[in-house]
Amino acid sequence: MNFKKSDLIFLPVGGSEEIGMNANLYHFNDRWILVDLGISFPDETDLGIDVLLPDFEFIKSLGDKFLGIFLTHGHEDHIGAIPYYADNINCPIWGTHFTIALLKRKLNENKKGNHLELNILNVNEEIKVGDFLVKAIETSHSIPNPISILISTTAGKVFHSGDWKLQHSNNLDEKMDFENYRSVGRDGVLAMVCDSTNALVEGRTPPESFAYDGLLDEIQNRKNIVLITCFSSNISRIKSLLDIAKKTNRSVVIIGRALLRAIDAAREVGFINKMPDFVSLKDINLIPKSNLLIICTGSQGEPNSALSRISKGIDKHINLMKGDTVIFSSRKIPGNENAISKVQNRFLEQGVEIVTDDEKNIHVSGHPSRDELIDMYSFIKPKISIPVHGTRDHIDAHSVLASDCQVPLVIKPQNGQFIRLNGSSQGVVSKIDFTTHVYDAGEVIPINNERFTIRRHGLWNGYVSISIVLNENGDLLISPQITQRGVSDDDNVSSLIADIAIKIEEFIDNYNFSLNDSDNRLSDQISKLVKREFKYSFSKRPIVDIHINKVE
Amino acid sequence: MNFKKSDLIFLPVGGSEEIGMNANLYHFNDRWILVDLGISFPDETDLGIDVLLPDFEFIKSLGDKFLGIFLTHGHEDHIGAIPYYADNINCPIWGTHFTIALLKRKLNENKKGNHLELNILNVNEEIKVGDFLVKAIETSHSIPNPISILISTTAGKVFHSGDWKLQHSNNLDEKMDFENYRSVGRDGVLAMVCDSTNALVEGRTPPESFAYDGLLDEIQNRKNIVLITCFSSNISRIKSLLDIAKKTNRSVVIIGRALLRAIDAAREVGFINKMPDFVSLKDINLIPKSNLLIICTGSQGEPNSALSRISKGIDKHINLMKGDTVIFSSRKIPGNENAISKVQNRFLEQGVEIVTDDEKNIHVSGHPSRDELIDMYSFIKPKISIPVHGTRDHIDAHSVLASDCQVPLVIKPQNGQFIRLNGSSQGVVSKIDFTTHVYDAGEVIPINNERFTIRRHGLWNGYVSISIVLNENGDLLISPQITQRGVSDDDNVSSLIADIAIKIEEFIDNYNFSLNDSDNRLSDQISKLVKREFKYSFSKRPIVDIHINKVE
Repeated sequence: MNFKKSDLIFLPVGGSEEIGMNANLYHFNDRWILVDLGISFPDETDLGIDVLLPDFEFIKSLGDKFLGIFLTHGHEDHIGAIPYYADNINCPIWGTHFTIALLKRKLNENKKGNHLELNILNVNEEIKVGDFLVKAIETSHSIPNPISILISTTAGKVFHSGDWKLQHSNNLDEKMDFENYRSVGRDGVLAMVCDSTNALVEGRTPPESFAYDGLLDEIQNRKNIVLITCFSSNISRIKSLLDIAKKTNRSVVIIGRALLRAIDAAREVGFINKMPDFVSLKDINLIPKSNLLIICTGSQGEPNSALSRISKGIDKHINLMKGDTVIFSSRKIPGNENAISKVQNRFLEQGVEIVTDDEKNIHVSGHPSRDELIDMYSFIKPKISIPVHGTRDHIDAHSVLASDCQVPLVIKPQNGQFIRLNGSSQGVVSKIDFTTHVYDAGEVIPINNERFTIRRHGLWNGYVSISIVLNENGDLLISPQITQRGVSDDDNVSSLIADIAIKIEEFIDNYNFSLNDSDNRLSDQISKLVKREFKYSFSKRPIVDIHINKVE
Repeated sequence: MNFKKSDLIFLPVGGSEEIGMNANLYHFNDRWILVDLGISFPDETDLGIDVLLPDFEFIKSLGDKFLGIFLTHGHEDHIGAIPYYADNINCPIWGTHFTIALLKRKLNENKKGNHLELNILNVNEEIKVGDFLVKAIETSHSIPNPISILISTTAGKVFHSGDWKLQHSNNLDEKMDFENYRSVGRDGVLAMVCDSTNALVEGRTPPESFAYDGLLDEIQNRKNIVLITCFSSNISRIKSLLDIAKKTNRSVVIIGRALLRAIDAAREVGFINKMPDFVSLKDINLIPKSNLLIICTGSQGEPNSALSRISKGIDKHINLMKGDTVIFSSRKIPGNENAISKVQNRFLEQGVEIVTDDEKNIHVSGHPSRDELIDMYSFIKPKISIPVHGTRDHIDAHSVLASDCQVPLVIKPQNGQFIRLNGSSQGVVSKIDFTTHVYDAGEVIPINNERFTIRRHGLWNGYVSISIVLNENGDLLISPQITQRGVSDDDNVSSLIADIAIKIEEFIDNYNFSLNDSDNRLSDQISKLVKREFKYSFSKRPIVDIHINKVE
């Protein structure tokens, strides 16, 4: 690696030029710290995969030069990978109250990380780790207790923004004091590593009260059931909804484990003082429709969510109909449009009204729009801007904005780049290849693992298994057994399978076992025969498994 | 069915509340005609499926009461299902020159439809089919030779717009004479069935010359290779590009079978007079980079396209690098955003510049924006408006617009609804359930066929096959053979597989064959045992195939 021990290095492991999987390393005096360790979700090109994880190999290789993990807030794209890598983490983890409360619950559910040292980091608290001094700076986002992180070293300071906006949430008691940022800036900041999510959005992101007003407006005049789906960790939104429920004389039903987990964490930390009396699902029919407010996960059209089940009319407890309303108090994450629209269409077909943030003011973003970014550059005045947390489009737009804000050097990072922040030749000094990892069959493996290729091939072609029983002379003792799964309907393939059985018998009758002593060679050749037949008759190339059973 | 033989009925088979699969039936005097028969493409929720087709069962059931198919233009979502259903089509098909030229090529490639009667329908020509009089009205779209269709009956006239815009393409010699539309309107139109694609877009859709100017602007100052990807049937765009190539002294390379098919059809029909001298791929290195213009399919990020291959740097002939440019002269079809962005990011990583219609005027839509819809309502003045060709959002917006245009009755159709257009009680009189079909393993089957459930289960869980050899007493003759595909890595599962083999042996040793004489029962029980083990060790529920081989 082409840098010195005393260099201050920024190394994005995940989250640069991609949404999610935020994980950012800092190096100084031969020691490393990590900010965030998040997951991401597969898109339509990642078939058969549940979750994406940043590459942890390099971090593992650091051994005890790796000193600690600092979490900016509790969203999955910032903390979600910790349970998966818990067994490999031997350093302390710091986060604010709510972040740690959520993380603990996630670790417990996964039965992981009992050994982890989880530390509460308070706003304005400073922690010394190696030669890094790390300070938590209060900010606002769409989850309680978010922080920006100021990393001070003798080579300079880095302001790592995390996810933020400048408009605070009233109902989370956030105290957004811009003087905090200004004072950081006055002390001199070498580099700002900053959220790019809304770098294409003009103006300012509205405060939570904007969504509150819109939701109150929507809900107060409805006569029947109102169901609202939102992101589970958006406690501010949930508090808004609880308050609106009270105002509109509705009892609240909560559906979804993630929601209950987040509410429980918020209660532990004190964001929700007293747990409201939620109506249990089995009592739902006791409440008049006009007095029900259901809060539910599934805003992204997830096929296994309760919301999707309700939309299909197959939920045990909830059956919506004409007169009822479903409010999507959330944004559409790109790639989920079709799944969301299928859920919405099913409701519309039943006469259920759908309200979304396309036409109503019922959701606000948690990220800074362009005018807020400009403000932040005026507060922090960094010498270097490093836009992260966005696709290339967002990072490009943020870069131009930073240059316009007179930042002397803007560096667009890519995952795996070692970016030197100090000294005279600032910029990329080295690069390693990171491979996205996934969790599958109980282990974390690279996304290019062969099993996915096999399964995806099977998704279009199906499977065929064949068993052959031979005596020691290579004579068939019984007819080959052939079964198929998913190639076509059993009725369609039965005659082809009978044909193939005869062809295999003929092949084995004529096979010279003395010349070809390997079972593998025999099964390879039968496999070719079988594939040829399926290709010809069904235009399919199934995965073929052949068992040669030799009986003595 | 709740209607009379003399009723004029509109029955959408596909394309209402969905994008694609346009297929619309009309009934009058106990006879039926169909306008268009298109396909659609699966979204991220339709795993393992290549193509979606409208339900043809009802049409098949009509027998010789089904008199003919009229095609408005040659796009896949209007003609694409014909090869799949060709064997079931016994009536004539009408379309304009280019539409029929394209259809012929598609049928030839699929070796289908030799028996079909394909008729050229000229603009302003009238065809009498049963008691329908069908007239082709010239329009403009993003493919040559599009038409609207005027269907006249003694019960009233229907103006079926097809896909259209009011701005013509100069280079396709389109003569958009609004007087045509006005005269249709003056004769009295009962119902207009009309394109809703851009019902949410304000203003007017620009003409092709707008894209021409933008592309010329982009291309003329580039010093290296320019590659442009566009929809293959957009002959007007391709003619623009051939013209720009000439102006900018570039030789043209065409990549993609669909492009070559469309260009060949355009040449046959006379839209391209003289086939230009395309550079063959193998000669590409003989041309200086500044003199190359590559036109290529793959604008939607299709993983198997040449463009995707080029973006990965694994194409045999084309290797783009810093200084080269890739222009996406197309829109993003919703649902393809991630696939497109992956292709674009790969180019960007290699320093190749990407130009899209987000920031440059290099693409125009083929559909009418709101002001054009308003114009069309003022021309046609229908008594009934039926917005089709769009999702529910588009159809809702179009409905409001139609009402604002003083159309007395607006009917939002759903696939399967029999909508009576004549008489006093106009509207939905009956409904049948249509199921989306798909083409798989050489046959057209309903989308809910069980094979897809099996394959999707396999996509997450993999497959296990087991063969067991028993003698007539039920004694195992050799150890069970167990193999897995895609559950995990072979190394990971080898010890579990050894354990399972022993457990199966024990199970069979203790199995009472005299009480349980069915092989199925034995294999069910072994299957349960195997699934339990994989669930416990790998959190997977593989598909398990068991062969019980009994040797006498």
